[in-house]
Amino acid sequence: MRTLRALFLDVDDTLYSTSEFAAVARRAAMDAMIRHGLKMRLEDAMAELYEVIAEFGSNYPFHYDRLLRRLPPHLLPEVNPAILVAAAVGAYHDTKYRSLFPFRDVPDVLQRIRSRTNLVIGVITEGLEIKQAEKLVRLGVVPYLTPKAIFISDQIGISKPNRKLYQRACADAGVKPSEAMYVGDHPDNDIAPAKEVGMVAVRHRWQGGKHASSEGRVPPDYEIRSFHELIPVLRDDFGLADV
Amino acid sequence: MRTLRALFLDVDDTLYSTSEFAAVARRAAMDAMIRHGLKMRLEDAMAELYEVIAEFGSNYPFHYDRLLRRLPPHLLPEVNPAILVAAAVGAYHDTKYRSLFPFRDVPDVLQRIRSRTNLVIGVITEGLEIKQAEKLVRLGVVPYLTPKAIFISDQIGISKPNRKLYQRACADAGVKPSEAMYVGDHPDNDIAPAKEVGMVAVRHRWQGGKHASSEGRVPPDYEIRSFHELIPVLRDDFGLADV
Repeated sequence: MRTLRALFLDVDDTLYSTSEFAAVARRAAMDAMIRHGLKMRLEDAMAELYEVIAEFGSNYPFHYDRLLRRLPPHLLPEVNPAILVAAAVGAYHDTKYRSLFPFRDVPDVLQRIRSRTNLVIGVITEGLEIKQAEKLVRLGVVPYLTPKAIFISDQIGISKPNRKLYQRACADAGVKPSEAMYVGDHPDNDIAPAKEVGMVAVRHRWQGGKHASSEGRVPPDYEIRSFHELIPVLRDDFGLADV
Repeated sequence: MRTLRALFLDVDDTLYSTSEFAAVARRAAMDAMIRHGLKMRLEDAMAELYEVIAEFGSNYPFHYDRLLRRLPPHLLPEVNPAILVAAAVGAYHDTKYRSLFPFRDVPDVLQRIRSRTNLVIGVITEGLEIKQAEKLVRLGVVPYLTPKAIFISDQIGISKPNRKLYQRACADAGVKPSEAMYVGDHPDNDIAPAKEVGMVAVRHRWQGGKHASSEGRVPPDYEIRSFHELIPVLRDDFGLADV
């Protein structure tokens, strides 16, 4: 039976529905702009925003300025555009306060693993340092994590799907890749590199997930539909009897 | 009797208690850092943060990183410092959601002036574009403002106490300085330049205000202790009988 020493988790669309959250937050932002005078229907504003995000990337810091700049003048109200941008930014932030929650079973599963095994529980996530860290804080999962096992691509300087990111995380946590499991949703950015460096790759293929219908070029070791399905895998295949 | 066409407002410490809000928000930020493992007493963390703010300025975007960098290592927890910074940033933002309110009588007074007079109601504020605009949005005062009369120093490129900022605001709003009133709390940054360009200068000298006990080099035309004291001034000295 394989020995497991570490469990690493992806964050976005693995611990919570990033796409659903982003849709709610962006809708709130566009709604705030419209309430402050933007002369567009909500659906049209959303479509334009999604174009901006597609063109400039989701971590671009000036989506709303860019949106206003590309609109024909007759759609803009007389008010200082900073007010529209601030209304959108504020509404987006407020949505984080109200609506950023993990999948329902995540806290319980992590609590069980944390209290009943000696596994390192870490994170390997793609994104900006403070933005990704804020998600962990707001999702309430920090208490379950091994303090030194949080790895954020922007901070390390290596991006998914570069395998070195996974190798570095294992090395820094003091485990061999073959002793580490990775749980992620993305066939190419999570599963393929984790498997290629020798980790146990678990695909969180939840219903409605962005990549749920696509097959990856590298098959995972396990597929789960919900987070609590990790428990029997750990118990039955890795000898963690108490979990 | 003098004709008045415009009323311009300062924002910070005039429409709300900036110092009180900042203290609450910063305390929440330091408390969040301590809850995530920073080994300091709240008061000591606050003192260190205020030193950082004094040294790098209140609009410096990396207060919390800087704070962690200057602390001796034994005060830091093992966790990735991005978690501490994100916890602080998140707590600060959440405080804006919960605690950013105008002085109690501000909405009512602005509503009366807006609905019962033809005055342009504008803002002349010192600070960063989106940060100042967000305050206006969260304070709920945007509906009372004349859309084109919001002037933010960072956006215009002229800072208080440069008189040109006040002249520019009047010119862009299409009024002579002598036809415009400015309400602010700061003797040197608000009252002196407004008066020097010929505006009617009203000092909001509220109890507990940062500058309440200091006299400026230029006396204001009026002093008010609370926002509603504007009403009799407008009615009795500027012929706005209906306000």
